Amino acid sequence: MTKKLSTQPYKGTRDFYPQSMSQQNYLFDTMRMVVEKYGYEEYNASILEETDLYRAKSGEEIVNEQTYSFTDRGGRDVTIRPEMTPTVARMIAAKRKELAFPLRWYSIPNLLRYERPQRGRLREHWQLNVDIFGVESQDAEIEIISIANSIMKLFGATSDDFVIKVNNRQSVDYILQTYLGLDTDRSHSVAKLIDRMHKIPRDDFEKSLSEFIGDDLDKLLSVLDAKSIAELPDDLQKLDSVTMINAFIQELESVGIDNCIYDPALMRGFDYYTGIVFEVFDTHPDNNRSLFGGGRYDDLVGIFGVEPVSAVGFGMGDVTIQDFLDVHELSPEYATATELKVCILDNSVKSFAREIANELREGDVSVVFETVQKKPAQHIKSAEKHAIPFILFIGEDEKQSGLFKLKDLENHEEIEVSREKIILELKNRL
Amino acid sequence: MTKKLSTQPYKGTRDFYPQSMSQQNYLFDTMRMVVEKYGYEEYNASILEETDLYRAKSGEEIVNEQTYSFTDRGGRDVTIRPEMTPTVARMIAAKRKELAFPLRWYSIPNLLRYERPQRGRLREHWQLNVDIFGVESQDAEIEIISIANSIMKLFGATSDDFVIKVNNRQSVDYILQTYLGLDTDRSHSVAKLIDRMHKIPRDDFEKSLSEFIGDDLDKLLSVLDAKSIAELPDDLQKLDSVTMINAFIQELESVGIDNCIYDPALMRGFDYYTGIVFEVFDTHPDNNRSLFGGGRYDDLVGIFGVEPVSAVGFGMGDVTIQDFLDVHELSPEYATATELKVCILDNSVKSFAREIANELREGDVSVVFETVQKKPAQHIKSAEKHAIPFILFIGEDEKQSGLFKLKDLENHEEIEVSREKIILELKNRL
Repeated sequence: MTKKLSTQPYKGTRDFYPQSMSQQNYLFDTMRMVVEKYGYEEYNASILEETDLYRAKSGEEIVNEQTYSFTDRGGRDVTIRPEMTPTVARMIAAKRKELAFPLRWYSIPNLLRYERPQRGRLREHWQLNVDIFGVESQDAEIEIISIANSIMKLFGATSDDFVIKVNNRQSVDYILQTYLGLDTDRSHSVAKLIDRMHKIPRDDFEKSLSEFIGDDLDKLLSVLDAKSIAELPDDLQKLDSVTMINAFIQELESVGIDNCIYDPALMRGFDYYTGIVFEVFDTHPDNNRSLFGGGRYDDLVGIFGVEPVSAVGFGMGDVTIQDFLDVHELSPEYATATELKVCILDNSVKSFAREIANELREGDVSVVFETVQKKPAQHIKSAEKHAIPFILFIGEDEKQSGLFKLKDLENHEEIEVSREKIILELKNRL
Repeated sequence: MTKKLSTQPYKGTRDFYPQSMSQQNYLFDTMRMVVEKYGYEEYNASILEETDLYRAKSGEEIVNEQTYSFTDRGGRDVTIRPEMTPTVARMIAAKRKELAFPLRWYSIPNLLRYERPQRGRLREHWQLNVDIFGVESQDAEIEIISIANSIMKLFGATSDDFVIKVNNRQSVDYILQTYLGLDTDRSHSVAKLIDRMHKIPRDDFEKSLSEFIGDDLDKLLSVLDAKSIAELPDDLQKLDSVTMINAFIQELESVGIDNCIYDPALMRGFDYYTGIVFEVFDTHPDNNRSLFGGGRYDDLVGIFGVEPVSAVGFGMGDVTIQDFLDVHELSPEYATATELKVCILDNSVKSFAREIANELREGDVSVVFETVQKKPAQHIKSAEKHAIPFILFIGEDEKQSGLFKLKDLENHEEIEVSREKIILELKNRL
């Protein structure tokens, strides 16, 4: 070895030691539980895609600056997926004619983006993707937002902990193109700028905005600053696309989602969206940021040259959700799946003790069988460090008598049990 | 669109539509069930690692030809992990002093290698990695092979369906370096060649071998062709490292693993291994190949400049295991987690029906709620295509009477139930 090998993970990525893995599994298990309750089926794909897939809709900007793109040894341009939506659209398009729509699909892929790591954003993160394909009515949006809401609730959040902001593409297009009279290019640039409205200082935002729209700055700001439809300029309140948002918010209320508000400044980063967009924000003062979002993207499947399919979905990332749980103190305590550690007091009882460990496993107990010889106190300390709740020491005495001392490490109790009763005693106490 | 966008996955990778995803989840769930029963804890890490990690032990060959390696936008050399062992060794080394050994860890990462896709080998695959750290005795090997064996059994395999070949590094070193008198470099080259013994024609193998060892060819072949310790040349049968293998095979028999044999030609691909190595082979004539393997690698953690930790582990890939299950007809039928599809016969009952769907979800039933209007026969066809076992149609009649017709699509039965009894009826039949 000429140079010391680093033990650190690659910049902007994380090592998941069992404790953080367990936390991540808690996130994913909770998400899975909800989406499967709504009848969603899991799919997945490779982490590598041909780069063309991202050039088509994401715009060159993302392909060039934020992706891990390279040429493989066979000369193919490939990219490590920065998001899942192009992949799922590709998969739907590939079997456009055989799939039985509507489809309800979910996946929890890892995604990579080359960017400066910061709070809530790493180079690699995992993201629940939930999508419904083939439902044209707003029932799709209602279902998708209901799922997002149910996941938040199952994490232990209340309606006060987060707010769901909604907007739609039609009203954005109307406001920029008709109300302000911007052409397509300028309205696109202005939309991108508005998307960053809450991430840059207000002065900078207004200055950049006026470069595009000049004297219309106040006219636009009076729209963007509206906190509800009632605060919009009068002539916009009656707009079809705006009254539709109102009706949508009321429908969400009727299914028990009462923390949904209209936000005319909600743009969402990508250009996929064709209808309703939504974004969930943390209301906690220490984490006042966007958590995740989604919307309707009816045109994406069609770019593969097949008949378009209507689509609504959202992506929920593990890093931002973990921040949310931390700030609201909703993270569960670490728990391991291992229920019991069996240790031997003497090498002579090894086979006997292994037999018992296997017997317990057949009885559905998760058992660490430890043959390394240590003092009982050390075994106990190690079991506690691994959060294993029970320990059983086996020596010649136990082998002869058939009676075992089961130690409950949480309650600091010792229970004497016969071989046949170990499982029963454990299951009663777990 | 200037060029038609491909809907195909990147070469050598797979799209997992819900049906194949369910199959893959069956593999992973089965693996998880066994390893957690043995008290193993899950870990994970990023798919990207700095390239140096693989240069250290794998040898330049792998880094140069078989990995996806590139330079990131910040000038770092990075590699998409081709295997998990260097990562887990890095993680252990990073917390060498704080971790409570022995550690029992598992992970199911996806791995990428740039190679020509062929049966049993794709560019991307998933691999269960199971490792025990900090156990110096052969109890570690016994446990690791017991886990591998238990997974095979839980997949439904019998002892006749596969064979576990074992060897150890010490006897290989003795045979090549002492018995044949090869220097380190030549013995390394010969070991690599023997590793490919069953993948190349016998004539080519012998020809290549004789280039390294000349007249000793027959001497070596009489070792490599031995099907048991008794078939080895007399002077090798008494060798400590060989009698140790014999004792090891007997110990495996004593824990109920009776399909383990000695194979002096078993080398394993990498240079990690310091003791016992093993490899599981399919015995089916149509799939007569290596399925997976592992062994002891006590020196790997030490390359990070920390105190070494003894380690034993194996990696079990999804592609080869799926081939094994297919050829032995052990793959389960497709089943979805979704239990019921609720359809509306009229838009006027949408809210009422959604309420019922949510009520059932709260009662732990997985429910697709379908508001798209189709003929009942089309809804049934679509439910069958998604393998959903039950369907419930709700119209004005059902809303008024409070009586529902639950259709059991598998048994082609229709059961009339009250709202309160739907869950009970479903759970009884599932």
